[in-house]
Amino acid sequence: MSASALIAVLKGLLDQRGLLTEPADLEPYGHDWRGLFSGRPLCVALPRTVEEVSAVVLACSAAGHAVVPHGGNTGLSGGATPDDSGRQVVLSLSRMAAIRKIDVYGETMEVEAGCILQTAQEAAQAQGLLLPITLAAEGSARIGGILSTNAGGSNVLRYGMARSRVLGLEVVTADGAIVRGLRHLRKDNAGYDWKQWFIGSEGTLGIVTCAVLQLAPMPRHRVTAMLAVPDADAALKVLRAARQAIGDTLNAFELMSGAALELVSRHQQLRLPLAHSPWFVLIEAGSSLPGLRDAAEALLAEVLERGEASDGVVAESERQEAELWALRESITEAESKQGRSVKHDVSVPIPEIPAFLAAADEAVGRAFPGTRINAFGHVGDGNIHYNLIVPDGADGSALNAVVHDLVMVHGGSISAEHGVGQYRVGELLRCKASPEIVLANRVKRALDPAGLFNPGKVLPAL
Amino acid sequence: MSASALIAVLKGLLDQRGLLTEPADLEPYGHDWRGLFSGRPLCVALPRTVEEVSAVVLACSAAGHAVVPHGGNTGLSGGATPDDSGRQVVLSLSRMAAIRKIDVYGETMEVEAGCILQTAQEAAQAQGLLLPITLAAEGSARIGGILSTNAGGSNVLRYGMARSRVLGLEVVTADGAIVRGLRHLRKDNAGYDWKQWFIGSEGTLGIVTCAVLQLAPMPRHRVTAMLAVPDADAALKVLRAARQAIGDTLNAFELMSGAALELVSRHQQLRLPLAHSPWFVLIEAGSSLPGLRDAAEALLAEVLERGEASDGVVAESERQEAELWALRESITEAESKQGRSVKHDVSVPIPEIPAFLAAADEAVGRAFPGTRINAFGHVGDGNIHYNLIVPDGADGSALNAVVHDLVMVHGGSISAEHGVGQYRVGELLRCKASPEIVLANRVKRALDPAGLFNPGKVLPAL
Repeated sequence: MSASALIAVLKGLLDQRGLLTEPADLEPYGHDWRGLFSGRPLCVALPRTVEEVSAVVLACSAAGHAVVPHGGNTGLSGGATPDDSGRQVVLSLSRMAAIRKIDVYGETMEVEAGCILQTAQEAAQAQGLLLPITLAAEGSARIGGILSTNAGGSNVLRYGMARSRVLGLEVVTADGAIVRGLRHLRKDNAGYDWKQWFIGSEGTLGIVTCAVLQLAPMPRHRVTAMLAVPDADAALKVLRAARQAIGDTLNAFELMSGAALELVSRHQQLRLPLAHSPWFVLIEAGSSLPGLRDAAEALLAEVLERGEASDGVVAESERQEAELWALRESITEAESKQGRSVKHDVSVPIPEIPAFLAAADEAVGRAFPGTRINAFGHVGDGNIHYNLIVPDGADGSALNAVVHDLVMVHGGSISAEHGVGQYRVGELLRCKASPEIVLANRVKRALDPAGLFNPGKVLPAL
Repeated sequence: MSASALIAVLKGLLDQRGLLTEPADLEPYGHDWRGLFSGRPLCVALPRTVEEVSAVVLACSAAGHAVVPHGGNTGLSGGATPDDSGRQVVLSLSRMAAIRKIDVYGETMEVEAGCILQTAQEAAQAQGLLLPITLAAEGSARIGGILSTNAGGSNVLRYGMARSRVLGLEVVTADGAIVRGLRHLRKDNAGYDWKQWFIGSEGTLGIVTCAVLQLAPMPRHRVTAMLAVPDADAALKVLRAARQAIGDTLNAFELMSGAALELVSRHQQLRLPLAHSPWFVLIEAGSSLPGLRDAAEALLAEVLERGEASDGVVAESERQEAELWALRESITEAESKQGRSVKHDVSVPIPEIPAFLAAADEAVGRAFPGTRINAFGHVGDGNIHYNLIVPDGADGSALNAVVHDLVMVHGGSISAEHGVGQYRVGELLRCKASPEIVLANRVKRALDPAGLFNPGKVLPAL
């Protein structure tokens, strides 16, 4: 089938607003939001129902055109950007955005793939419940993309990755079948848990159209604190003390280098509440019980006393809480104002963090003089955004290799939360042992034998 | 290859204690612990290393003999019992039982498949950490079986199913490949999360040999209470009140019928701390914060005041806590003393519980007069053990069909936590929609094309 014949078929399947073909309309779907990845879609299909998704998939399959699923386009690895063949059909879930049901007794939400994360968060909150997935892009990211990439964020420490929230899923597979599993069940061992195969597979095995998410009780008491610590070792000691004292209440335990906050104060005009220090940690805890603040203040006194922290502040108001979080959340933007950066989204076992940082600083400094290191991250999860601000002309791939080799030495992952997309396919093949790649290819071939879905993402195109 | 040739090959691969072939030695592996399922193994292989597991798998594959993985043999669905062909090789992981590492900073444990759950729990506790998987069989169940069946238990409400504890996995696949993924990482999105494919697939896709588990902080304050409630609706209102008041501290919220506790008091000589009531709930909560007991007592007063509970008791000592839990944990044994029972391990969405119970009671009473209903379970998870004590000669399959049909009507699962094994294959095929079965078979064929692993479990033999 020719491309124009496919377009005619798709037009027949969808309503008037269901297919974009004009260059101006296609433009936003041809690149990621940072402009690092670009391609050329044949057209953009915007189905409104799972049946329409199935029909689009079948039409593309029959015509031999690949399908690139598209959510909020907030990914950092180019997973939603088509290639430049001009043949790939972008399938946007943005018109399937309903929140179908919130069950207050079961603490569940049934939500379509195109719903924006923040919309879903607010709907849960209106019922006194928490949808505990929090990340910088929550105002644009859509549920389908959140689940397809198994998104992380800053409260994984307490609530787990996006995967752990999923009770039920509906997907369209490469043969056009609609697999319906929108169950509101916390326990379900009736057969293979196939929804796990699609979560985190970045749209390469099927299209997520709807999900049932497990909500959580809303903690009524919250405390947020920032501490200055002399080094990464001390940060780990503070983490251990916090886990022992108030471990089950910890929402987030973030690490920021002094250099990162220096960029924030320079470029974002934000004031630091503490004097300069090589490292800082930001701690948030929440509980249904009122003793949280006392326990947190006792913890702070204890780590100051032992010299694990040199200074600290506990937010006294919601405004102060927001100011502390603004420092953490402005790092990426400040980094982009400083210059070109090469980003790494790595994780290592928590006790390896200090050794990894020392080894990486040393290796980068030696091989790439003039590079400025901007390290921060979710240290309670072992997840470091080890970003490098580099001189013009620096070889990003060579930098990646240096950092990722050390990640492997320390037993880590080259993508903690941002996924592989098209950005890390080469590094994944380089860093993963062959049996893991063999296994992945086997399931890709079983579920998508023709390579219909998102070819070249996560794995090389079939 | 003949069976005797395979035995000779296996003898050569394993040490002196590594292969059982004598009928008396094989006997315990030929049936499940309840004696409901039985078969005849050709032999039992007891490898000590993952390399030996791989060699056994390759030898069996070459000889065309199926492999039945075997852990603590505590399953309730016959998943570890071979068929009666006399050809299947039981592969016991019991000699791979080491706890290799506990990382206190990262709160992780690396443990081999044959380690008994309670041994792993105690090792975590010795480091001040909690391995939050709790179930009746914990003194015999082994980690490999716990993960292969995605075990549940009584603290799923807080900590999730066994799946949610797994950070890393090592498996042997049907081609004998050793897939090594023993990563101590809370965040890892580098490629497909293949460990999810093996967790809960009951040994039909690969052999779990070792795992990295995520531990949790040990809550230092605990409160346990038992309440009498007039009906299942009231139990749900108490659940909702508890979730709102102390939701993030709730470890367990169990429901027991008055009839179930009557059996316990009759057969187990245990005293009830409350007067008779149609239903009871058992609540356990834990926190690092000291205000827990006050909050729990306020909750109790609130639900009594509103008439959602008619009576209640809060345990005043560890002994009283144990006595309350003994009531819950003795139900199964009391049931077996009362007579023959037909068990159901079902889940429904939490708000559906009262309607499901009413409909099932009515349908069972009508179709099978003389049946005694023994309902209890993890109601905070929607998981009801809807067991029926039946007259001799009652048709178990017909009872299953009546109960499971109602489970489907109410949007539930025919196996919440016990899995499919060989027991529920027929019911699974009857109750699941075809696209789910197609998908499951596709992945089974991709990972185990010759049907080497545990044929006839979860799915019909290939």
